[in-house]
Amino acid sequence: MEIWKDQRLSQQMDFMKEADKLKTVMRRTTIMDGSRHENTAEHSWHISLLAMVLHEHAPEPKPDLSHVIKLLLVHDIVEIDAGDTFAYDTAGYSDKEEREMAAANRIFGLLPDDQAERIMALWREFEEMQTPEAIFAAAMDRMMPLLHNYYNEGYSWKQHGILRSQVLKRMEPIRLASPKIGSFIDELLQRAVDRGLLADDPSDKEA
Amino acid sequence: MEIWKDQRLSQQMDFMKEADKLKTVMRRTTIMDGSRHENTAEHSWHISLLAMVLHEHAPEPKPDLSHVIKLLLVHDIVEIDAGDTFAYDTAGYSDKEEREMAAANRIFGLLPDDQAERIMALWREFEEMQTPEAIFAAAMDRMMPLLHNYYNEGYSWKQHGILRSQVLKRMEPIRLASPKIGSFIDELLQRAVDRGLLADDPSDKEA
Ligand SMILES: [Ca+2]
Repeated sequence: MEIWKDQRLSQQMDFMKEADKLKTVMRRTTIMDGSRHENTAEHSWHISLLAMVLHEHAPEPKPDLSHVIKLLLVHDIVEIDAGDTFAYDTAGYSDKEEREMAAANRIFGLLPDDQAERIMALWREFEEMQTPEAIFAAAMDRMMPLLHNYYNEGYSWKQHGILRSQVLKRMEPIRLASPKIGSFIDELLQRAVDRGLLADDPSDKEA
Repeated sequence: MEIWKDQRLSQQMDFMKEADKLKTVMRRTTIMDGSRHENTAEHSWHISLLAMVLHEHAPEPKPDLSHVIKLLLVHDIVEIDAGDTFAYDTAGYSDKEEREMAAANRIFGLLPDDQAERIMALWREFEEMQTPEAIFAAAMDRMMPLLHNYYNEGYSWKQHGILRSQVLKRMEPIRLASPKIGSFIDELLQRAVDRGLLADDPSDKEA
């Protein structure tokens, strides 16, 4: 850590320098034009913007948008140490919690103690998905890869052989956050299946 | 535009797809490890986080942090059409306003009218730099390239032969937003000059 005259600023600059590394954490999805993989920093911006745009579709009483955005801005920083866990990777999920907790302690711990605690609390709130704000934030986070896959011709769905039922399961928080957005997701997945971007589940009749 | 059952969602999805292009707008600065140039989407995330972290240094009455973040999330979207104008490029600045206004009309205009107007208002507020929130947001936006240049050994300062006085002039909104952060910037620029990352101005004595 570089020491500056102000002790809090020294710690805060150290944290911002560390946070910069989120720009080098690569996700499974590509950007929407399909030209390259997406990194987690730009993804965090894009879902924060999505929350601003879609907040109107949350039923009353609406979650506090400002709080939703704060959750989204910090929720993925742990990936600097823990990496991006692919949504459908069950092995990766087994120790995800442990890896991310260690990462949160190290990275948020660079900040002054009181501030570290406040940002840790945001990260935990997102992870626990209990408050209306955390549910809406999770909905944005889960919806975005669908949009990417839809617009880039099903890139990571095809690559990993994902089925519609797997996607639907991931999308449950979206129905909690907004039935209207939930219906939109159903519509989008149906078009994705119809266009051959996403595999449908084998029907019971054929099995 | 792809038409979905819900008209507002059709427009909103069209906007989100367009906004994705901000990930392909490249800035003059590199990410802090110097490994590649930075794009504007990840920059927008990083300065929103910076605002969260440094808000405590704003003197009372403090600007509304949530509003600052909203300004920062949308302020650079016009660069999708207008490109990133380098801070010290006087030629590029001559028609910057006109290019960005056309971009704002086109891109925000993809949204439903009422929403387009609200986001346009945020963009204009940032540009006009009159409210306490816009001043604090501008301070974050201007401070960040300094941190990048400091950590990446003066990459774009050296490349463009920038002098300390030019940087200081750009940093004026920071002093308005927070005298404490202003002092930190002075300290950082002095170290940058001492370490040969930034050229000092020729002194009057030598001239
Ligand atoms: Ca900017």
